Amino acid sequence: MTSETTPRELQPLPDLLLQPMVESALREDLGRAGDITSNSAVPADAKASVVMAARKPGTIAGLDLARLAFTTMDPSLVVETLAQDGDIVKSGAVLMRITGSARAILSAERVALNFTSHLSGIATATAEMVAAVGTHKARICCTRKTTPGLRAIEKYAVRAGGGANHRFGLDDGVLIKDNHIAIAGSVTNAIQNARAANGHMVKIEVEVDTLEQLADVLALGVEAVLLDNMTNDDLAQAVAMTADRDTVLEASGRMSLERIPSVAATGVDLISVGGLTHSTPILDIGLDFESA
Amino acid sequence: MTSETTPRELQPLPDLLLQPMVESALREDLGRAGDITSNSAVPADAKASVVMAARKPGTIAGLDLARLAFTTMDPSLVVETLAQDGDIVKSGAVLMRITGSARAILSAERVALNFTSHLSGIATATAEMVAAVGTHKARICCTRKTTPGLRAIEKYAVRAGGGANHRFGLDDGVLIKDNHIAIAGSVTNAIQNARAANGHMVKIEVEVDTLEQLADVLALGVEAVLLDNMTNDDLAQAVAMTADRDTVLEASGRMSLERIPSVAATGVDLISVGGLTHSTPILDIGLDFESA
Amino acid sequence: MTSETTPRELQPLPDLLLQPMVESALREDLGRAGDITSNSAVPADAKASVVMAARKPGTIAGLDLARLAFTTMDPSLVVETLAQDGDIVKSGAVLMRITGSARAILSAERVALNFTSHLSGIATATAEMVAAVGTHKARICCTRKTTPGLRAIEKYAVRAGGGANHRFGLDDGVLIKDNHIAIAGSVTNAIQNARAANGHMVKIEVEVDTLEQLADVLALGVEAVLLDNMTNDDLAQAVAMTADRDTVLEASGRMSLERIPSVAATGVDLISVGGLTHSTPILDIGLDFESA
Amino acid sequence: MTSETTPRELQPLPDLLLQPMVESALREDLGRAGDITSNSAVPADAKASVVMAARKPGTIAGLDLARLAFTTMDPSLVVETLAQDGDIVKSGAVLMRITGSARAILSAERVALNFTSHLSGIATATAEMVAAVGTHKARICCTRKTTPGLRAIEKYAVRAGGGANHRFGLDDGVLIKDNHIAIAGSVTNAIQNARAANGHMVKIEVEVDTLEQLADVLALGVEAVLLDNMTNDDLAQAVAMTADRDTVLEASGRMSLERIPSVAATGVDLISVGGLTHSTPILDIGLDFESA
Amino acid sequence: MTSETTPRELQPLPDLLLQPMVESALREDLGRAGDITSNSAVPADAKASVVMAARKPGTIAGLDLARLAFTTMDPSLVVETLAQDGDIVKSGAVLMRITGSARAILSAERVALNFTSHLSGIATATAEMVAAVGTHKARICCTRKTTPGLRAIEKYAVRAGGGANHRFGLDDGVLIKDNHIAIAGSVTNAIQNARAANGHMVKIEVEVDTLEQLADVLALGVEAVLLDNMTNDDLAQAVAMTADRDTVLEASGRMSLERIPSVAATGVDLISVGGLTHSTPILDIGLDFESA
Amino acid sequence: MTSETTPRELQPLPDLLLQPMVESALREDLGRAGDITSNSAVPADAKASVVMAARKPGTIAGLDLARLAFTTMDPSLVVETLAQDGDIVKSGAVLMRITGSARAILSAERVALNFTSHLSGIATATAEMVAAVGTHKARICCTRKTTPGLRAIEKYAVRAGGGANHRFGLDDGVLIKDNHIAIAGSVTNAIQNARAANGHMVKIEVEVDTLEQLADVLALGVEAVLLDNMTNDDLAQAVAMTADRDTVLEASGRMSLERIPSVAATGVDLISVGGLTHSTPILDIGLDFESA
Repeated sequence: MTSETTPRELQPLPDLLLQPMVESALREDLGRAGDITSNSAVPADAKASVVMAARKPGTIAGLDLARLAFTTMDPSLVVETLAQDGDIVKSGAVLMRITGSARAILSAERVALNFTSHLSGIATATAEMVAAVGTHKARICCTRKTTPGLRAIEKYAVRAGGGANHRFGLDDGVLIKDNHIAIAGSVTNAIQNARAANGHMVKIEVEVDTLEQLADVLALGVEAVLLDNMTNDDLAQAVAMTADRDTVLEASGRMSLERIPSVAATGVDLISVGGLTHSTPILDIGLDFESA
Repeated sequence: MTSETTPRELQPLPDLLLQPMVESALREDLGRAGDITSNSAVPADAKASVVMAARKPGTIAGLDLARLAFTTMDPSLVVETLAQDGDIVKSGAVLMRITGSARAILSAERVALNFTSHLSGIATATAEMVAAVGTHKARICCTRKTTPGLRAIEKYAVRAGGGANHRFGLDDGVLIKDNHIAIAGSVTNAIQNARAANGHMVKIEVEVDTLEQLADVLALGVEAVLLDNMTNDDLAQAVAMTADRDTVLEASGRMSLERIPSVAATGVDLISVGGLTHSTPILDIGLDFESA
Repeated sequence: MTSETTPRELQPLPDLLLQPMVESALREDLGRAGDITSNSAVPADAKASVVMAARKPGTIAGLDLARLAFTTMDPSLVVETLAQDGDIVKSGAVLMRITGSARAILSAERVALNFTSHLSGIATATAEMVAAVGTHKARICCTRKTTPGLRAIEKYAVRAGGGANHRFGLDDGVLIKDNHIAIAGSVTNAIQNARAANGHMVKIEVEVDTLEQLADVLALGVEAVLLDNMTNDDLAQAVAMTADRDTVLEASGRMSLERIPSVAATGVDLISVGGLTHSTPILDIGLDFESA
Repeated sequence: MTSETTPRELQPLPDLLLQPMVESALREDLGRAGDITSNSAVPADAKASVVMAARKPGTIAGLDLARLAFTTMDPSLVVETLAQDGDIVKSGAVLMRITGSARAILSAERVALNFTSHLSGIATATAEMVAAVGTHKARICCTRKTTPGLRAIEKYAVRAGGGANHRFGLDDGVLIKDNHIAIAGSVTNAIQNARAANGHMVKIEVEVDTLEQLADVLALGVEAVLLDNMTNDDLAQAVAMTADRDTVLEASGRMSLERIPSVAATGVDLISVGGLTHSTPILDIGLDFESA
Repeated sequence: MTSETTPRELQPLPDLLLQPMVESALREDLGRAGDITSNSAVPADAKASVVMAARKPGTIAGLDLARLAFTTMDPSLVVETLAQDGDIVKSGAVLMRITGSARAILSAERVALNFTSHLSGIATATAEMVAAVGTHKARICCTRKTTPGLRAIEKYAVRAGGGANHRFGLDDGVLIKDNHIAIAGSVTNAIQNARAANGHMVKIEVEVDTLEQLADVLALGVEAVLLDNMTNDDLAQAVAMTADRDTVLEASGRMSLERIPSVAATGVDLISVGGLTHSTPILDIGLDFESA
Repeated sequence: MTSETTPRELQPLPDLLLQPMVESALREDLGRAGDITSNSAVPADAKASVVMAARKPGTIAGLDLARLAFTTMDPSLVVETLAQDGDIVKSGAVLMRITGSARAILSAERVALNFTSHLSGIATATAEMVAAVGTHKARICCTRKTTPGLRAIEKYAVRAGGGANHRFGLDDGVLIKDNHIAIAGSVTNAIQNARAANGHMVKIEVEVDTLEQLADVLALGVEAVLLDNMTNDDLAQAVAMTADRDTVLEASGRMSLERIPSVAATGVDLISVGGLTHSTPILDIGLDFESA
């Protein structure tokens, strides 16, 4: 057993941050009158025991949100978590058991599944790309192309899949792109102004499209460079150009599961993939009634 | 002029409902310190003119959210909308022009694109399925398997793609599923209780897995029946069984673009597809600087 | 059929929906400094046992809100619920016992009573009208003429009194009124457009003032018709005109407790009364100290 | 200078305080999908001009809320206010004209009317009691028995009707009632503790049931005394007992329009009536389409 | 033991009012990703026991907020309160012990300390001024010059230090200043209008700069007078002018700890000091790990 | 043109982030009934022109918040900004002119001043320390010891005074302190785990108390080191130890205006001062009526 185990790396988000999302989602579904089907068709005192199970193989994320969906709906529900975020599971794997009021379970079911299947879909896609990297050092990384309102948990799901996080927002890192440079007049101006205006805990990354631009930027001493839409040959050349520096190199643009191995082989540090958070299908997860 | 025009059918959501989502999304991205890149690298008085353009062909949805993202970030930005939600566009189509403070445009860019590309992805997937239905009467329909917090706008995107909406929440329609029936003891109990407990504007739909169950339910007089995971033959048989009724028949379960034509050919009224809202990739939309 | 079917029909609202209203009401009363009378005049460690009692006969609604008012003010308060929403009680009936910190009980008293006496007033007025219907089939129904912010709980109180709910909002049912028709150009246009734009779970009701309009509307096949301000003779005629249909007929306009029996006798399905939620006096309910 | 200077006495509430209530009420009515009737039955470009008119004689309150309901729904609506809060109007009086998008007007209509008719009902009931006082000095006063969430505007409506306001909450005045005294051990204790704990801008009022208690309290020097459920004879005696003091005397308990004149004749300063805010019917106000 | 003990006078604020401030403060610090230092560097199962201790002598306020910071971060943390608000402590005094998850304690530490050290700073400064008053009757009083968002708790801290509270906001007392008088035309107008427009529980205070103005105001019969920027001689003269009245006299303007004794000696009732809430340094309070 | 221009370095916060703080502060002051003094004593149609002026010399911050306070209270107020944040002004300097409704100006005055005087106090204290650094390279830096709820604007005020910002929260930088190290078992463990768990845009800083600890940490390659409570000699030695590295050195602990020059002379990069945000007196700023 080594120290690189997932549990160590996967930092859970505190319930304090998850709770408002869960309450909003439940209120969105309950509307003004609540679950009019369960409340009328199901007796108030009916009890049930259900399990949440994966219907496909994949990597799990979002179990805390499912737990909170059930206990927020009804604090008397008993939730037994049977898997952990970051676990790679087979089809049929049981993730959670919920016992208590049948009405409450039915009322919270969809919200719990919507969160967990969406985040597990992201974790699964990430884990596939991480596996595709193989023994190369490159880490799979997300972007700010996230679903509005869900950034914190989608980035968490990327971590659950073994990926790395880029900036959480516009305020926690500087990323100078082509348009910034065009408006600033020169990349030198842009970098100097960003350096002067921001504190010592802020890193600066610059996007470049060509190796010439990379050379310019390296001369100015930034912490990271985003290599956008480059060929693998150019990426390998970029790695060579920075062999004696600790500049982080991030490859970006039209990455696919198929292309990841060859990109990783160039020696870049990061491969960022917007699609992880904006175009990933869910992992199919469902609820099965054990008894009712 | 005919009554099937998109503008007539596509009901816009009032800004009042969209504004809180846009503000939350902007605050999620701006964090505590705002856009530290643009604010430092770009002069405060720099102006820019940019266009939002489709990078792939598809059906557009979410332009109101993009407009609000820009004007909420900076009310002095001028937004010219050059397309309408529901439009089917080619790659390269220009959707919107934004003119004003370069900093403000750059600060709102990602939120505007995250909304519009996500919703246009849903509209595009819906429109493809609607096209696959051809001349059959079946309508493509969404479910409650939506992204937490975005249900109203995702269902709007389904409408923009020509689809129909199922329930908006647990409170605006009764949908009795297998677990409700199991707990209620019988489908008769479940339907009667639901009828007694709910007002006259509430419709009742019941999920069935077999034609035998369908026969039982029809005898009880519900407004709609969800035919879950049936073969096309069974679906056709269900249509025949209800030939002299106005019961709405909804086919559901593992629908794909490939299967849609044959399902539609069975004569069902609705084909519901959870994947429209939970597993659809974005439509790639970007921002191009005309001048800065 | 027995009279105990109240519990089955009365769907409680989940605490999740009630809690924000209770917190807002407590904060509205506590202001910035809290209960400066109780906190100064009453020792911090004083205990009390109080009962909430009806001061007049009536039908009860809102006990969950009273319970939450006390436990939200102070989670250590012990609340014993001694009646159920929907119960018809005599003057003096004891509804709830609260034991614990005297300060906390005094601080939450007014909010608890404001909720319960208001909702019980609505339930009582509804139950009186339901009783006036007698053995006729008509159900007493509310409208959207509710107190801003309290719609969900006022409609719940109508149910507690044995009444039925109309729409919860503008989004969960179509109700085409005279002005819609005037602007749409014709009732045919209005209905067709509404049918085309809305999903299969949405019912359509049309308001008519005359029997001629009713005939037109029936030909177009809507689920319900609102008969506005008609004489009892016209109402009876309307019932006759729809004898072979399952169209729901709702009588509306200037209904009073005195007129209800004769309207019910016409055979209409629903009698809607805006006054239930906008003009009903409270049921007088108070708090008595058993010991302090 | 005359005493009808209503505009001077009636302090409007700032829009900043009204706006959140209006937004909540609109969102409560619009739900997740907006006004599905108007949006489908009424063309997007249809314009209308409507007037809000009183259907009964009464005193008006809440026009600012109606104005905000329309302009919040659609900032392009033009609202012309044709009356002022506090105005005494005849049946048929036109209060406001709204011009613009027919859809927007129809979507905001119910919220605007719900606010204005509720508050005008309170103002009307207050004005009737104020008139019943005649030339006596007594002022009609409200209580904390208000509708949860609406206290600020209900107390405003009392002022619009010519009434006076009691405390706005538990934090802006001390009112020592029987239970406080019982728990504190003595009225002397209660008053001394309240005086010691609260700042110099806080007034203290004590509730008494008998003239003996009044005598005790007067000896302790409070600013106001609430005379609860006393006969008119006792009230007159209380007035006599305080003839040489500036203690405010408030009569309370089972006040009706019929009894007001005789109570006012006793010479008390205030007559407080819980029913003004908890049991008053609306003033019937409607919307008439001038053109559409 | 006398009845002037601090515990009697110090009214705690209910958790209901404190909880939203604590949650906002925690969310402000946790941002989108939580405590990335503790969550990565500290094992999830590490436990710790820490004490909160004063690093300087002073008067304590805000322990409830510290308690809530820890329990809101993690409800399983055990908090043992070892001092009370209002206590005068020596350097090194232990105020609270927290035991449980090391991560949770570290995540909540800064918020707990920021609240308690800020409020204890206010309480300490107040207590020093209260002590400087000595045996004179004057009470030290705060103003509305508070930190935005923290008024309720800063005024509570003033009480914890033995001071008195002025108005909590613009709505719970009338304070007529020079500009009001200038615009109203005369102090007589201003007072009469304020008296007419406000209820019987509202006190009126008028600001004066000269003894001539004081004479005018006394003739009009207000409850309190703010003597602004007067010399001690003028203050003494003002006290003499009101010897036979119960008008409260408040001295204000450029008060310092040094000047307080001489001002108190003039016989004024109140000495108000804006600096208590806008310019007071914190009391240094820290967290010490007992075991980890 | 030089690079030290304030406008370039001082990034304004977007109104979108300031608006909620301003609204909360206004609501905190207006309470339930608004400004009952101005609304009664001042005629509704009275106009005024006022200027905000510094009463002491200092550095200005918070003018945007003042502007928003006035325009949020009443959008018809005309605000003319006559100075800029970051300006160093003399006593008497006019900062802003506000023209319009006298009531609205008076209602918003205190909130506007509370924000601006608090932030200008921070900016002034920062600027004094920045001046004390003289020609040395050290930058004055803030901490997370901020007032709850105001962190973003207090850190902005530090920038307005020429200072630099440390982390904005627990989530945008790793700062490993003594307790983290103690619980992690070793500084090596703590740094490795933090590096593994966080993305490439996250910097890591470690706190050390001794030069021995510094040597250990430098061997592990972190971006910054916090030198806590060291003597100036030790600080100078630390600078010497890192002469050939680009590790940022931050001196911290008991910094005062008097000590700053000697600390800066040691050659450290940053001097962090908690007192800037937790113990700084306001800059006295007031409102003067030009006409009314």
